[in-house]
Amino acid sequence: LHQKKYRNREGLFLAEGVKLVDELLNSSYEPYRIYSTDPDLHAGAQLITEATLKKISVLVQPNKSLGIFKIPSPEPLSFAGWILALDRVRDPGNLGTMIRLCDWFGIGQLLCSSDTVDCFNPKVLQATMGSIARVNIHYLPLAKALTQSKLPVFGASMEGSDVTAIDWPGEGILVMGSESHGISAEVRTLVSRTLSIPGYGGAESLNVATATAILLHEIRREGFIQR
Amino acid sequence: LHQKKYRNREGLFLAEGVKLVDELLNSSYEPYRIYSTDPDLHAGAQLITEATLKKISVLVQPNKSLGIFKIPSPEPLSFAGWILALDRVRDPGNLGTMIRLCDWFGIGQLLCSSDTVDCFNPKVLQATMGSIARVNIHYLPLAKALTQSKLPVFGASMEGSDVTAIDWPGEGILVMGSESHGISAEVRTLVSRTLSIPGYGGAESLNVATATAILLHEIRREGFIQR
Repeated sequence: LHQKKYRNREGLFLAEGVKLVDELLNSSYEPYRIYSTDPDLHAGAQLITEATLKKISVLVQPNKSLGIFKIPSPEPLSFAGWILALDRVRDPGNLGTMIRLCDWFGIGQLLCSSDTVDCFNPKVLQATMGSIARVNIHYLPLAKALTQSKLPVFGASMEGSDVTAIDWPGEGILVMGSESHGISAEVRTLVSRTLSIPGYGGAESLNVATATAILLHEIRREGFIQR
Repeated sequence: LHQKKYRNREGLFLAEGVKLVDELLNSSYEPYRIYSTDPDLHAGAQLITEATLKKISVLVQPNKSLGIFKIPSPEPLSFAGWILALDRVRDPGNLGTMIRLCDWFGIGQLLCSSDTVDCFNPKVLQATMGSIARVNIHYLPLAKALTQSKLPVFGASMEGSDVTAIDWPGEGILVMGSESHGISAEVRTLVSRTLSIPGYGGAESLNVATATAILLHEIRREGFIQR
């Protein structure tokens, strides 16, 4: 289950660590097997030794528990509210961090282009810190999905409008591109407004997860201030 | 040089990849040896084979060039402007990303508590994307340094004031704590104002690098709007 092809064939994925296993057990995810060096930690957990845990874990320092869960079918996609869309994001840590950001900012739906890294990759799961349990993730041909939506589509780019000067609508889609190539040409034609984060001229660019953090914060900012 | 003790003993560090080597060569960093599979890429580079590169590299997929540089003495610390201070940050990717953020937001000085991960760790360097060349980094006993400064000290915490409602001074120190334990008790007593990022109640916390991105963006935001 460390590899995508086996996860998809079995319809199962592996979640490691006490916190992640707990978050998934308290969600709509369906457990298949739960193993722990301390079976009192989770209902229905089977005792395993430290040595066995080390053998099946992908982590250098495994943390007590390991769960095998069924890969869920995502809830039907609904083009409403704010949606984050990722075009060809390849780094597992970045994807996991962005799932955690969606959870923090109340973004319930995440669209991923078919070539974005798999969200059940163990490194992605680790970086979500359990937030995967609360975000609906859809893998799909992104350009096609965007043409089916009537929401305004915003995209991050180096030459966009200053993100601090945007009058945000109540709903929309924010598209973030890959770490090295940005938004693909096909998707770019569907972006109605490009945004950029003002910088002070040192670094050429920001990491995609930190840029997403700032953009989602800006989208939610007016609501925060009114609250 | 993959390990801190050898880097400190030799006063040298290893930088990998064409872009990082180029950024360091174009900075005040002093090169010791530059190796590349394509010596035309950098002035003074020595030719090595792909096989040799693979052997000395820490990366799974090394990128053509590898440079050995002298560890510089940081420029004298000056308590002026905005300064970022990190208390016990352990993850190399997070530190590297925050160095890149400093560069983007024009924060020229970064203070790291003595137990923060070493900035010349290869994974940190990789994540800085060359920004290490433009940020002055000081490792020091953080609490002692903060008592020597007259700048206002801001700290991120889960129970702080809403970051969008702060009237930022023109200069100050922003303290970010460790991924799992936040700001240490000793440093916390020196924080004059705690800040938090408004969330929508899903995730318990944000990754330290994404939280830093939002806070630095907020600090610089008024200036952006006035510009």
